[in-house]
Amino acid sequence: MKGRNLALLTDLYELTMMQGYFTTGAYNKKVVFDLFYRKNPSGNGYAIVAGLAQAIEYVQGLHFTKDDINYLVSLNMFTEGFIEFLKDFRFTGEIYAIPEGTVVFPYEPLMRVTAPIIEAQLLETALLNIINHQSLIATKASRVVWAAEGDPVMEFGLRRAQGPDAGTLGARAAVIGGCCGTSNVLTGKLFDVPVKGTHAHSWVMSFPNEITAFREYARQFPDNCLLLVDTYNTLESGVPNAIKVFQEMKAAGKLTGKYGIRLDSGDLAYLSKCAKIMMEEAGFGNAIISASSDLDENLIASLKSQGAKINLWGVGTKLITSDDCPAFGGVYKLAAEEDDNGNFIPKIKLSNNPEKVTNPGIKKVFRIYDKKTKKIKADLIALKEETIDENQGLTICDNNAKWRKMHLSPGTYYVKELLVPIFVDGELVYQSPKTMDIQAFCSKEKNSLWGEHLRLKNPHIVPVDLSEKLSQLKNRLIDEMSFH
Amino acid sequence: MKGRNLALLTDLYELTMMQGYFTTGAYNKKVVFDLFYRKNPSGNGYAIVAGLAQAIEYVQGLHFTKDDINYLVSLNMFTEGFIEFLKDFRFTGEIYAIPEGTVVFPYEPLMRVTAPIIEAQLLETALLNIINHQSLIATKASRVVWAAEGDPVMEFGLRRAQGPDAGTLGARAAVIGGCCGTSNVLTGKLFDVPVKGTHAHSWVMSFPNEITAFREYARQFPDNCLLLVDTYNTLESGVPNAIKVFQEMKAAGKLTGKYGIRLDSGDLAYLSKCAKIMMEEAGFGNAIISASSDLDENLIASLKSQGAKINLWGVGTKLITSDDCPAFGGVYKLAAEEDDNGNFIPKIKLSNNPEKVTNPGIKKVFRIYDKKTKKIKADLIALKEETIDENQGLTICDNNAKWRKMHLSPGTYYVKELLVPIFVDGELVYQSPKTMDIQAFCSKEKNSLWGEHLRLKNPHIVPVDLSEKLSQLKNRLIDEMSFH
Repeated sequence: MKGRNLALLTDLYELTMMQGYFTTGAYNKKVVFDLFYRKNPSGNGYAIVAGLAQAIEYVQGLHFTKDDINYLVSLNMFTEGFIEFLKDFRFTGEIYAIPEGTVVFPYEPLMRVTAPIIEAQLLETALLNIINHQSLIATKASRVVWAAEGDPVMEFGLRRAQGPDAGTLGARAAVIGGCCGTSNVLTGKLFDVPVKGTHAHSWVMSFPNEITAFREYARQFPDNCLLLVDTYNTLESGVPNAIKVFQEMKAAGKLTGKYGIRLDSGDLAYLSKCAKIMMEEAGFGNAIISASSDLDENLIASLKSQGAKINLWGVGTKLITSDDCPAFGGVYKLAAEEDDNGNFIPKIKLSNNPEKVTNPGIKKVFRIYDKKTKKIKADLIALKEETIDENQGLTICDNNAKWRKMHLSPGTYYVKELLVPIFVDGELVYQSPKTMDIQAFCSKEKNSLWGEHLRLKNPHIVPVDLSEKLSQLKNRLIDEMSFH
Repeated sequence: MKGRNLALLTDLYELTMMQGYFTTGAYNKKVVFDLFYRKNPSGNGYAIVAGLAQAIEYVQGLHFTKDDINYLVSLNMFTEGFIEFLKDFRFTGEIYAIPEGTVVFPYEPLMRVTAPIIEAQLLETALLNIINHQSLIATKASRVVWAAEGDPVMEFGLRRAQGPDAGTLGARAAVIGGCCGTSNVLTGKLFDVPVKGTHAHSWVMSFPNEITAFREYARQFPDNCLLLVDTYNTLESGVPNAIKVFQEMKAAGKLTGKYGIRLDSGDLAYLSKCAKIMMEEAGFGNAIISASSDLDENLIASLKSQGAKINLWGVGTKLITSDDCPAFGGVYKLAAEEDDNGNFIPKIKLSNNPEKVTNPGIKKVFRIYDKKTKKIKADLIALKEETIDENQGLTICDNNAKWRKMHLSPGTYYVKELLVPIFVDGELVYQSPKTMDIQAFCSKEKNSLWGEHLRLKNPHIVPVDLSEKLSQLKNRLIDEMSFH
C-alpha cells in the first residue's frame, strides 16, 4: 500500500456519515469499532488472520490529496466546512489487533479501533477490504497445505487472481498460510518470499520438437530442471523425452540439482503413477513429480488417498480466489461510544438475523491453553477490564451451546491475550514481522490445534465463550433495545 | 495501472523462459499469442470482455526499474547478458483486441499479440490477470442487471473484494456490465462513474435513538434521503420512524428529492411488501425501497418472482467476487511462429483434455448479424487472410456440433470483424472510450442477443464456428503432432 493514495478507497456512505457527524458537531466523540467475522470460510474450523501490515500502511498513509479534494468538491455533495476539515485529516486514534498468522475464531475482534467517530468511520471499508482478503487466502492456503501432508505447495494463481493486488497480496497471504513460495515475482520482491517457476507449454511449442525444447532447458537450467511433459502426449512423448534428457544429463555429470517433471492436465493419479514407474525403471526414482491442474485441498486429499505419486503441488486458481468461498465475511461494528463525561457507553446492533446481533462494549480476547498439551482449550471474549487468575479454576462454555461446560482446574491452563497495541494516539507502536517469520509463527499457531480442528470437513470446533460480564451486558442491552 | 510499476507482476517462469530464448539467440523471432477463454462463467450464455484500458496502461508503462533489476540480480538465476537486455526492455510489437463491453464467446481470441517471443512471453501473466478479472466481474454484473429487469443496480462490494484493485477495477467492470453506480469513491474518481451511498447502522447507533438519527440525516441530506431501517426492528421501529420523518419533511416542504428506505437483513420479500403497504397507507407510495443483503442474480430473480416490492438493488459480495464462479479461465497460447524466411508457421498445443487443444494460426473473428433483427446469428473464427462476401450465401455450423448447420442467404446477413488494432510497432493506436460510454456500448451489445441467450440458466447458445480453412489446418496439425 506504500506510496499509494487510498484515502478514497472507501464507500461513499462513510464520507456522507462523516459529514453528518461533522455537521452535528459531535465528530470528535470517541467511539470503539470492532472488526470481526461470523463464520469460518470453506467450512474450516478456524481462520488465519492476515493483512495487518498492509492495513498499517494504509492508516499511516491516510490523507486526502489535492486531487482527492477536487474530486469530492466536484460531487456537489459536501459542505465547505467539511471539505476544509478533510484537508488536514489524519488518524489520531488507537488500534489494537491480533497479529498476522494467528489462528482466530468467529466473533473475536481481530481489530479494535478507538478514535473520534469521524476517523473511525473512514477506516471501515479499507480495513475490511484488506483484512478480509488476506485472511481469506491465508485460511485457504492453510487448508491446501494441510491436505498436502507435508509436501511443499507453491502458489501459482496470479493469472486468475482478481486483479494485480489480489495476485500480489493474495500470494503474500498464501505464503503466510503455509505455501513454500509463489510464482509471482512482484510478491517475491515486495515481501522477500521465495519465487518459483520453470517453463510453460509455449517453451516446448517454440522449438521444432519436444526433445529439443527439453534439452535446451536442461542445458540452461540444470540445477532446477522441472520439465513440463503434457504439451503433446504425457506418457508417449513427454515422460520418455524427459527421461532421455535426464539420462543425457546424468551421463554428462550434470544431474546434480533438482530435476523432475510437471503434469498439468489429464488424470493426475494415473499419470503420476505411470510416470513414477517409468522413471524408477530408468533409475530416476528420486525425481520430483509435480502437478498443477485446477487443484484445491479436496482434490489434493483425494489424490493422496488414491496413492498418486506427486510430491510437489502447484496450486493456482482455486487458492488465489478461494474458489469455494471467495469472500471472508468480516464486518466492522460500533461497540461503544463516549458520553459527555468521557465514559464509554456500550452499544449493540440488533437484527432480524440473530447471528447479526453484535457484542457490545470494549472487549479483549483471552486464549486459554492446556498446560500439558499446549493446545488451545477455548477462547474467551471478555470486557477490557476483566482479568483471569490462572491460579483459580475457570469454567468455560461454548457461547453457541451454553450447556456444554468445561471446568479447568487451577494450574492446568495458561492464558494469553490476543489483541496487541498497533497505534496509540495515532502513532505506530508495532513493527510487522517479515512475511516468512509470520509464516513460521502461523505454523506454530496451527500446532496449538488438534488434528481434529484442522480437518477439512466437519472439523472439531474450539469453543469461544463470552465472559459472564459480557453476557450480562449483552442481555441487558438486548432487553433495553427490544422496547425501543 | 498508471504510475504503478508492474514489470514484475509476472510468473517467474516467464522470466526464465525469456532468458532461455535470449540465450538460444532466437529471442527476436516473432510469435503470435492468442488470449482466449474456454467456458462462460456462471453458466452464462456469453461473456462481456473488459479490462483493455488497464491492459493498455500496463503495456505502455512496461519497463524494469533499477529496483526491479536489483531484485532479479539478487535471485542468482539470471545471466548478466539477460539482465542487461532487461534494462532497455520495452514492448515493440502489435496487439489486436476486442473492445471492452463487447459480447464474446468461448475460444474467440479476445486479444492477439504479435511480437518478438521474448516480449510476447512477458505479457502473458499480467494481461491474463487484468482481462480475466474485469471480464469476470462485467459478466457477473450483466447477469445481475438482467435479473433486476430494469431496476437500477448499485455495486456495493468494496469491503469484501479481494484487495483494493479487486474493489476498484471490479467496480469499474461492474459499471461496464450495467450497474448504475458504485459505492467505491476511488472508482468514481478514477473512472468518472456515479458514486452512491447514504448511511450505515453505525450512524443510527451513534445517536440516542433511531428517530433522532433519521431526523438528523433527513435534515442534512434531504435530497437523497434513503434511511436504513433494520438497525433495531424493521417493521416495529425502522419503517414507522422513517414514515414519521418523511411526514415531517413533507410538512416542511422538504420532501422534494429522492427518499425511501433500505432493507439490509431479514426476509426481503416479506419485509418489502409490509413496508410498501405501510408507506402507501401513509401516502408515500412512490418511496424508494432498496435492498442489500447478500444479493445475487438468482436471489433477485427469486424476489422478483415473489412480487417483492424492491425497486433499487445494492449488490455487494456476490457481485464483486463473482461468488459462484470467482475466476474467468482466460489463457494465453502460442498460435504461430515466424520461421527463418519470415513466414508465420501455425502452432498447436495438444492435451490429454480435449477442450484444451488450441486453434492454430493467425486468426480473426467475424460476427454475423441477421439483417432484419440485427441480432447475432453466429461468430466465425477464421484465418487472418480470409474474407466473407456478404453477397454470397454462407453456411455456418456450431464447432461443437458440426451437424447443426445454418444456411444464410445472400443479403440476409452482415458481418463485423471484432478484433481492432491497439498497438502497432509498439505504438498505441487506440483510444479507450470513457467507462460510461463503454457501459452504453455494452448495453447495445446485449441488444444484439435474444432474451433466450441472456437467460440466467441453460441459455440458448450462439454458435461459434471455425472456418473451413481453419478447421483443415487444425486437423492437419493434430494429425502431424499425434505422430510426434
